[in-house]
Amino acid sequence: MKKLIPIISLFLISLTVSAQNTDSITIRKLFDAALSQQVDYNTLSYMCTHIGQRLSGSDNAEKAVVYTEAKLKEFGADSVWLQPCMVTHWVRGDKETASANSKKLNKKQTLPCCALGGSIGTGTQGLTAQVIEVHGLNEVQKLGIDKVKGKIVFYNGPFDPKFLDTFTGYSQAVGQRGGAAREAAKYGAVGVLVRSMTPNHDDYPHTGAMGYNDSIKKIPAIAISTNSADSLDAMLAKDADVQVTFRTTCQTLPDVPSHNVIAELKGTEYPNETIVVGGHLDSWDLAQGAHDDGAGAIQSMEVLRLFKQLGIRPKHTIRVVLFMNEEHGGQGAKAYADFAKTNGEKALAGIETDRGGFAPRGFSLDVTPELWNYLSQWKPLLADFNCGEFIHAGSGADVGDLKGICPVLGELYPDPQRYFDIHHSALDVIDEVNWRELEMGGASLAAFMYLLDTHGIPGMN
Amino acid sequence: MKKLIPIISLFLISLTVSAQNTDSITIRKLFDAALSQQVDYNTLSYMCTHIGQRLSGSDNAEKAVVYTEAKLKEFGADSVWLQPCMVTHWVRGDKETASANSKKLNKKQTLPCCALGGSIGTGTQGLTAQVIEVHGLNEVQKLGIDKVKGKIVFYNGPFDPKFLDTFTGYSQAVGQRGGAAREAAKYGAVGVLVRSMTPNHDDYPHTGAMGYNDSIKKIPAIAISTNSADSLDAMLAKDADVQVTFRTTCQTLPDVPSHNVIAELKGTEYPNETIVVGGHLDSWDLAQGAHDDGAGAIQSMEVLRLFKQLGIRPKHTIRVVLFMNEEHGGQGAKAYADFAKTNGEKALAGIETDRGGFAPRGFSLDVTPELWNYLSQWKPLLADFNCGEFIHAGSGADVGDLKGICPVLGELYPDPQRYFDIHHSALDVIDEVNWRELEMGGASLAAFMYLLDTHGIPGMN
Repeated sequence: MKKLIPIISLFLISLTVSAQNTDSITIRKLFDAALSQQVDYNTLSYMCTHIGQRLSGSDNAEKAVVYTEAKLKEFGADSVWLQPCMVTHWVRGDKETASANSKKLNKKQTLPCCALGGSIGTGTQGLTAQVIEVHGLNEVQKLGIDKVKGKIVFYNGPFDPKFLDTFTGYSQAVGQRGGAAREAAKYGAVGVLVRSMTPNHDDYPHTGAMGYNDSIKKIPAIAISTNSADSLDAMLAKDADVQVTFRTTCQTLPDVPSHNVIAELKGTEYPNETIVVGGHLDSWDLAQGAHDDGAGAIQSMEVLRLFKQLGIRPKHTIRVVLFMNEEHGGQGAKAYADFAKTNGEKALAGIETDRGGFAPRGFSLDVTPELWNYLSQWKPLLADFNCGEFIHAGSGADVGDLKGICPVLGELYPDPQRYFDIHHSALDVIDEVNWRELEMGGASLAAFMYLLDTHGIPGMN
Repeated sequence: MKKLIPIISLFLISLTVSAQNTDSITIRKLFDAALSQQVDYNTLSYMCTHIGQRLSGSDNAEKAVVYTEAKLKEFGADSVWLQPCMVTHWVRGDKETASANSKKLNKKQTLPCCALGGSIGTGTQGLTAQVIEVHGLNEVQKLGIDKVKGKIVFYNGPFDPKFLDTFTGYSQAVGQRGGAAREAAKYGAVGVLVRSMTPNHDDYPHTGAMGYNDSIKKIPAIAISTNSADSLDAMLAKDADVQVTFRTTCQTLPDVPSHNVIAELKGTEYPNETIVVGGHLDSWDLAQGAHDDGAGAIQSMEVLRLFKQLGIRPKHTIRVVLFMNEEHGGQGAKAYADFAKTNGEKALAGIETDRGGFAPRGFSLDVTPELWNYLSQWKPLLADFNCGEFIHAGSGADVGDLKGICPVLGELYPDPQRYFDIHHSALDVIDEVNWRELEMGGASLAAFMYLLDTHGIPGMN
């Protein structure tokens, strides 16, 4: 990477004060337009209230494809097309039920619950077994087959609320959700309960993806609310023989065809070089997927709309990609990355937004140290618009597949405090989105895309 | 102020790496304690749901005095006392009504409204007159007595949504609310409508203080929602003879006795030198005053609670002041400032929090350039805790009266995007407060107070 250094030095010098002033004026216009009009918010609000949840493989997901395709045309994209991909088709079935029963305590406790995405169902009769509590995947192995066989394993590892960046707390805890069933099944468990992935204490179950090992028996998995996990923990402290009953009728059907939605503003100087911005169009099914990731999908579209409205003609091709199936296999991201690789795409950057439509703080970047220094030139300018914090914490799941294609991978970094209170739960609705925070995020994304396009990436145009 | 410089230089050198590490460890503990327990949120939630609105002079305001006094004792304050002050006692009366009527358009439009704080009422019969629209105080003078006399003046100057810091938009627009009635009355108007002080477009009227000139006739004043202001504007564009009717029964009763609530942790080295932290306990009456300023009052109490819980024995006396009547005259702030002046208080700092319980970004400071440089040492440390942005934008209304007593006046600076959507309206309820954002703010405040106490202020201890 050392060869980049002289080129970067040249760029640092060439970014004159005059260019900075021009940049600042343009970025000011992007924010003015976003904050004056509420188009971003109204577009998201329509999708949330008129379509709603967009579970991968569902009719609603296809309605969202149709809606965003039409909107991108209305916004003035030079071209809009649908990129086919096959996607997971898991269906939730009946509203799930769960309860804990202690004969010793003469107590029956309802456990607000939902099936985890990808889980098999219990069958219509439900499942009843003694429950045993653990706090992480490794504890199941320690208990061994003698203590686990025939039981329901209750994973009660907490989401640590002390991390200021809630994504760190989530990353630490989420392995318990993904691996719960396959680990417990190794030791003969008949089902699993998983404490919801939130640092909050409430009555909402939070769903999310889980996986099986094809060589081990599949067992049903549900998430229970954090309050009910605490209650169950308290019951087990007084009675080791608590029985849990739960009933789910979810199932995985054969994959179905779906689409990424892709739109372009053609570059005036380097039409064959792309800068990608995207979010995912699918969501979980318990609510409207307003923050996850309706916000990110619509903010990505907003970049194109703002460029068109302000007459910004990009030098490179700006490509908006609304990825399908991020939540449940990432098949849309793979389809896009395969297309980019097969076509030998020349791409400067892949910028994602999938951390909710909250007040922006800056950008998370996955780049070389040389490019970190190069991009850091823009921090003071972006700080004037409340989005100048850069963190080195990787990019999101959708643009992650573009590693090796784009030298810059990044993600909008909004304030992370509220995200996991609503994430994958019935609370992820448009009422939880503030219009100014959403518009600020869209404008921040547009500003970063503008800087990437205007100043390019050293070693590329 | 030049004499401060050598002292400041010494301080800069003396803040060793070791001290920074100790500071960082202590601040980490403050955040850990705040984020693990939700005490701050639960205390605010209780006050919002069990007491509710705390309009100056109301029984509810006194209930809040009793509640917070008891809580501060429970939190382990060395002393808690009530400081008497007389406060405004304005009462809203019946639910207000307003409508616009156009014979030409054959249209009657309801205008969601509320009386402005301090307004006289229309009387039970209501008030009907032709309406004339202006966009600021100066336009009334331009229209003059011929066009204004006998009419209702409709102030429709917008709250500019383009300022990233919404407080700037508010500052620009709010003069229209405060001066609406006295300016219009000069030219013979019989009443005023004021567009609500929010950048949002919705159906909620936002109240707030207004004032009269004792030498000019008092006329009734109401705020109408921004959506209805837009509708009325559209009606007036088609028919200049629109009549407005509104009815209010609000009135100002004689001042009543009330209290500031004051609590201390006595300083171990400099017990006679204080560092003040506070918010205001009163609120407007349309909702629970959750963000304005329940959040700030409870976060100030949280500083004391966290210090006690972690066994932090301050060198200087930490004084928590819950000010009464910020919204409607600032009589509590004046009473405290008078007390401090009369006693010849030696005070290092007055730190307020009255910008809502949103995710903290940093602190707004009203200090000399020398002290700005001194305090700026702490920015990198505070930035690690998401509260390292310092802005030079003054302090709040309550500690403002301490100017000349404290060399450092400041205010917690939370993200400003959502504040004016809910400010002074029926939306200011606990459901709009996120627990993590509130706890982060309380911990940020405690961290700043800890640094002030530990390192002192140059020229003082």
